[in-house]
Amino acid sequence: MNAPKSVIASPAALRAEIRAGRFTAPTAGQGGEALQANLVMLRGTDAAEFLRYCQANPRPCPLLAVGEPGDPSLPSLGDIDLRHDVPRYRVWRDGELVDEPSDIADLWTEDMVSFALGCSFSFEDALIRAGLPVRHITADRNVPMYRTSLPTRPAGQFSGPLVVSMRAMPAADAIEAISICQRFPLAHGAPVHLGDPSQIGIADIDAPDYGDPPVIEPGDIPVFWACGVTPQAAIVTAKPGLAITHAPGHMLVTDIPASHAERRLTGVHPV
Amino acid sequence: MNAPKSVIASPAALRAEIRAGRFTAPTAGQGGEALQANLVMLRGTDAAEFLRYCQANPRPCPLLAVGEPGDPSLPSLGDIDLRHDVPRYRVWRDGELVDEPSDIADLWTEDMVSFALGCSFSFEDALIRAGLPVRHITADRNVPMYRTSLPTRPAGQFSGPLVVSMRAMPAADAIEAISICQRFPLAHGAPVHLGDPSQIGIADIDAPDYGDPPVIEPGDIPVFWACGVTPQAAIVTAKPGLAITHAPGHMLVTDIPASHAERRLTGVHPV
Repeated sequence: MNAPKSVIASPAALRAEIRAGRFTAPTAGQGGEALQANLVMLRGTDAAEFLRYCQANPRPCPLLAVGEPGDPSLPSLGDIDLRHDVPRYRVWRDGELVDEPSDIADLWTEDMVSFALGCSFSFEDALIRAGLPVRHITADRNVPMYRTSLPTRPAGQFSGPLVVSMRAMPAADAIEAISICQRFPLAHGAPVHLGDPSQIGIADIDAPDYGDPPVIEPGDIPVFWACGVTPQAAIVTAKPGLAITHAPGHMLVTDIPASHAERRLTGVHPV
Repeated sequence: MNAPKSVIASPAALRAEIRAGRFTAPTAGQGGEALQANLVMLRGTDAAEFLRYCQANPRPCPLLAVGEPGDPSLPSLGDIDLRHDVPRYRVWRDGELVDEPSDIADLWTEDMVSFALGCSFSFEDALIRAGLPVRHITADRNVPMYRTSLPTRPAGQFSGPLVVSMRAMPAADAIEAISICQRFPLAHGAPVHLGDPSQIGIADIDAPDYGDPPVIEPGDIPVFWACGVTPQAAIVTAKPGLAITHAPGHMLVTDIPASHAERRLTGVHPV
């Protein structure tokens, strides 16, 4: 199903391949050091309510850019056409996943609004550069993700549990990871929990709700970050007539350097 | 033994009372928002080795100021005379505690060098302002402190275990505390450990080596910070002929605003 996973370092060249239908694979490690994004597209009042949901829940839903209604471009993130430029989409009707196409031009409408949300790739790069273990990457697995007992703040019809990703590491590394990640508010920021999983409603750490089982070494503690899958759980709850998202791991690759997800010392919004 | 604990908001006025021998109490809550400091005084080559020890171990020994040999003033921290301006001192001979006077003018020598080290009061203020629990303060106890199995980096004769202080709080609060404290490198910075105490050689969390037993609420995790008592443990190991320190809780009160312990965004050394 997927194209051969050769590495394309230029985000524009990668998007050209995706747009032509020749690249439909996960985007991890692709596009050089470019910022990658979660994508959500909704129509009319659904979009208006979802924008309020993101504003109320910036940890799981850090907004990088919002498109104009009916406009499939996101000029602040690059020369992007959202009808073609994601390698694999998910199509949701009334909250149910119905398709995973590699192009959604036939589904685009004049009242469609797109939302690009920060993703964890940015801070994982920073953790690796700091010499911290990111065990699912070393093991070539997807990150484990869990539905929690922590509620998000509702907005209109959108509500539901916070979904978290988990990375296990020694306590001293967890402390350094927290110091690093709080500088990345556009990549989910600091963790939301660490230690006992049952405190946030996770019954079995070895059985994630999404992604692959975790890699936990002796002496590790689990550290939990707000996750960009949270809006997909909210879509399941809200049941909008039509929603389109990226497929997990198949992200929107922007022209923005990944380092821009880090809060600048001047406090200027990075993108 | 202690003077009545009325609050003196001016650091200069407080030091004048201390200098006159009328204030010999702990300094917590005294001197308004002024930065307080741990104090170590050593002679000759002992001082030279201790300076290298501080440089090698900035987490437990964050240097605020170092005096000129034989000079009891620390002009960068205020109008200070270190022979009189600490409410209670500890005198150590060959690594043994021999006295706790309120004035050390008779012990001052021409080769004495003084070291002012940052203390945890600065970050505790920041935690309280952020609405985080600091349970030993609420319970009006001294913070619990523990000798760990983590070694400090030796310098000359100075070596020994890292001593840590412990504050217990819920995991989400611990994450916020880490984000706050990593901005305070001159007040011990981010924690060094959290969670399982046995990982750093603490056998019984309820039996601290210094201070009072901990207050731990259900759902709390223990969080451990490098502690300014570490140099006193190194003095016990090194057995210098003469060392003088402050007595625990009886700190040097400076004229520097406590907020200066926070790293400035410009990266300028704060004091």
